[in-house]
Amino acid sequence: MRAKLGELAARFGCELIGDPQVEVCRVSTLSDAGPGSVSFLANAAYTSQLRTTTASVVIVTASDVDACPTAVLITDDPYLTFARIASVLYPPTPVDPGVHASAVISTSAQVAASAQISASVVVGEDAVIGEDVFVGPGCVIGDCCSLDTASRLVANVTLVQNVTVGKRTIVHPGAVLGADGFGNAKTATGWLKVPQVGGVNIGDDVEIGANTTIDRGAIGDTVIENGVRLDNLIQIAHNVRIGEHTAIAATAGISGSAIIGKRCMLAGRVGVFGHVTICDDVILGAAAVATKDITEPGFYSAHFPAEKSKNWRQKVARFRRFDKLADRLRKLEEVNKKNDG
Amino acid sequence: MRAKLGELAARFGCELIGDPQVEVCRVSTLSDAGPGSVSFLANAAYTSQLRTTTASVVIVTASDVDACPTAVLITDDPYLTFARIASVLYPPTPVDPGVHASAVISTSAQVAASAQISASVVVGEDAVIGEDVFVGPGCVIGDCCSLDTASRLVANVTLVQNVTVGKRTIVHPGAVLGADGFGNAKTATGWLKVPQVGGVNIGDDVEIGANTTIDRGAIGDTVIENGVRLDNLIQIAHNVRIGEHTAIAATAGISGSAIIGKRCMLAGRVGVFGHVTICDDVILGAAAVATKDITEPGFYSAHFPAEKSKNWRQKVARFRRFDKLADRLRKLEEVNKKNDG
Amino acid sequence: MRAKLGELAARFGCELIGDPQVEVCRVSTLSDAGPGSVSFLANAAYTSQLRTTTASVVIVTASDVDACPTAVLITDDPYLTFARIASVLYPPTPVDPGVHASAVISTSAQVAASAQISASVVVGEDAVIGEDVFVGPGCVIGDCCSLDTASRLVANVTLVQNVTVGKRTIVHPGAVLGADGFGNAKTATGWLKVPQVGGVNIGDDVEIGANTTIDRGAIGDTVIENGVRLDNLIQIAHNVRIGEHTAIAATAGISGSAIIGKRCMLAGRVGVFGHVTICDDVILGAAAVATKDITEPGFYSAHFPAEKSKNWRQKVARFRRFDKLADRLRKLEEVNKKNDG
Repeated sequence: MRAKLGELAARFGCELIGDPQVEVCRVSTLSDAGPGSVSFLANAAYTSQLRTTTASVVIVTASDVDACPTAVLITDDPYLTFARIASVLYPPTPVDPGVHASAVISTSAQVAASAQISASVVVGEDAVIGEDVFVGPGCVIGDCCSLDTASRLVANVTLVQNVTVGKRTIVHPGAVLGADGFGNAKTATGWLKVPQVGGVNIGDDVEIGANTTIDRGAIGDTVIENGVRLDNLIQIAHNVRIGEHTAIAATAGISGSAIIGKRCMLAGRVGVFGHVTICDDVILGAAAVATKDITEPGFYSAHFPAEKSKNWRQKVARFRRFDKLADRLRKLEEVNKKNDG
Repeated sequence: MRAKLGELAARFGCELIGDPQVEVCRVSTLSDAGPGSVSFLANAAYTSQLRTTTASVVIVTASDVDACPTAVLITDDPYLTFARIASVLYPPTPVDPGVHASAVISTSAQVAASAQISASVVVGEDAVIGEDVFVGPGCVIGDCCSLDTASRLVANVTLVQNVTVGKRTIVHPGAVLGADGFGNAKTATGWLKVPQVGGVNIGDDVEIGANTTIDRGAIGDTVIENGVRLDNLIQIAHNVRIGEHTAIAATAGISGSAIIGKRCMLAGRVGVFGHVTICDDVILGAAAVATKDITEPGFYSAHFPAEKSKNWRQKVARFRRFDKLADRLRKLEEVNKKNDG
Repeated sequence: MRAKLGELAARFGCELIGDPQVEVCRVSTLSDAGPGSVSFLANAAYTSQLRTTTASVVIVTASDVDACPTAVLITDDPYLTFARIASVLYPPTPVDPGVHASAVISTSAQVAASAQISASVVVGEDAVIGEDVFVGPGCVIGDCCSLDTASRLVANVTLVQNVTVGKRTIVHPGAVLGADGFGNAKTATGWLKVPQVGGVNIGDDVEIGANTTIDRGAIGDTVIENGVRLDNLIQIAHNVRIGEHTAIAATAGISGSAIIGKRCMLAGRVGVFGHVTICDDVILGAAAVATKDITEPGFYSAHFPAEKSKNWRQKVARFRRFDKLADRLRKLEEVNKKNDG
């Protein structure tokens, strides 16, 4: 799509310094930009690129206006304004209603006339596909699953059973929603599978990354509330609940029955133990493992940054000798006490 | 399914306090239960819910009988008895024999008449699909793979080549069995791929989670013994062997040629180095990395729980100053020695 | 395939001690070998197996010749020579040109006559499938993707959009290339999706493991250079660049805009923070997390090996008491100072 700078400024409440009739049609990095490009500066590391950019317009804060050789859109939050303008220039591909001839739809499934069912899709019994839904090629939608208005399964997504997906939610390829959770009871001769009979309940405006897995509840549902963002290759175990607008980065793992609050941010590779409850507005740093409840908002972490292996090995060796050092200190203290005594 | 309390008590060796004619038809949590529900108490954290439950029956140990307002089934292991009763109430969906019209079966493949091959399945040359096998929609079964009696591939599972799956084994969506392992020989100009020519051999009564990957052997097979439980998003590299009844939780990774004993339990995100051997009955705690052989059963671990970042950063800083502290201690000791001398 | 020892020795520059007319047809481990087998010794741990092997020939260094009871091929790098000979004995399955009747190909896609498109494949608009390309069953190739000569998608691979794959590159099942990256701008009421408009650019001779995810660039492309090796279940975020001949083991995660140099080796579960740059020839040990730029080649790491939990917990407790110990030391120093003063 194309848009005029004047229209964008008006629509998103920015001050424009430049010609309101200039049209833009794409987003670019500062260094790759050219005529027709919108770019932005949100990270001081890129200020040097700002000075030489040839974008048609750059979205900046007031303090960066002077450094910019091109037209500017001035805003308090350049990244957010960039996101809004990019959404104008790159609207989602419109849904092309209809069911592809190669799709296999159970007779008891309901598919809205405005939905698009792509090639090689399989839809199970009693599934419900709502208005303006997009189901990409190769998706499998199992029995009793439902997709609400304008949700999108990009391609090769699997909804196993009893999965409900809310409005405008996007699920990326390879994601598996509603597989059996890891429920096993110990017997004298091995493990007995515990039937997993709950479902998965995904809210509105959620986004679920590629190859992420969200297990069905053991009893009751696994719940992903409205506005949640899940990156790729994340494991969400049975009966987990993720609160509204929480964002979780790639390769994180949330164990069974854990409850994550609203507006939390979990960095890459975070782990959360089973049955742990994390309150609203918690940030967990990269690779941190939350082993018990967190009841106070804030930033939590626990990892050691990589360093030269030789140095690291020395530190580990010292760590192991810590008790000996403590012993030596104790002896010294005793000697001192005696001397003082 | 429905069952009478009297029948369940008799079948599973529980003492029933209550009306043996009452029927139950579903499992529920203590708090969500109602007439027709079976619930259980296996975790003291839920005792308060027991007092107010309206389940038709609760499975408890003898010590919890008095606290329960409803009929009880008394047993030493409520969770195991619950699993058994749930298996009665929720039997696996029966196989519906036949090959869907959209499935593509190689002429040299053998498919038992009692097997169910769902829509969009592709079966390669010389594959063998046994009695009562269920192959869900979108699965790809490559050349020379075999599925033994009553095994189930839920949906979108890929068996690449030379994969044998045992009786009653379940494979969840997105799992990839038999892909090439990570075999690369270094040359002066880059990596040379080492052909991976082994297979994957999965035993009976195994369960493999969603998006888990099990590579084919480089030479010889990767082996998953009977009764093993693998959760989601686990990596099993080439030529690994996992012993009977071992259970591995999500996002763990087992490197090439590692051997894990029988009845081990590996928690989430565990890592095992290549060529490491772990004996029977080992428990590895969350995120532990086993870097060398473990020859003694027991519980092994190594991780730091997440804590407030400010506190954690102080600890890391101290950890880095450890050598300076050791130096200071050494000096004090020398002073003391001199003073004593 | 079959080959004579004399031919192999000549082709790969080895000294042969043995009958040049003997034929081999398969590779085996030393212990499983028999007539017709080629085996190799590259790890001293297997020397005892060498003494009793019944392989037709073993690839060894000069120093192991005497210990070998069979014909030998002598070379400086047995594993590399093994890889070369295995590549002769196990050539890739030849491509069988043609489009399967069940494949769905957009009218605007171009498919070379020599390419093989398997069952249940879906090819989008303006996709280009080059000469001798193999597209395995269940793959989805989205709009504007291209596959260069002799590249292979094994099965159930998803290329979402704007993904270019180079010559002879292999992508294993379940891999997802070109899904939207994790781009979210914060608003007062939740996250706003930032349109992801870049592509993925995969070089020649790359190998990408099962269920690995490589996101499209936010703006500009995510780039995997020639000769890179990626194992299974790896996350490559938007706008990452991986340099030539770098190898990354399973379950690693590379955050957005990170740049990894050439010939690096990243072990299993390595993490790299966003926007971090790692120079050429860096090795990151298992589970290491690179939190900032690495500018010097070498070996970097940071993890604690698993040990008995009781011992580990003591160490963690001491780690937490470190500041108290430091306080005690400070007091002793003050006492000593006073005493000296």
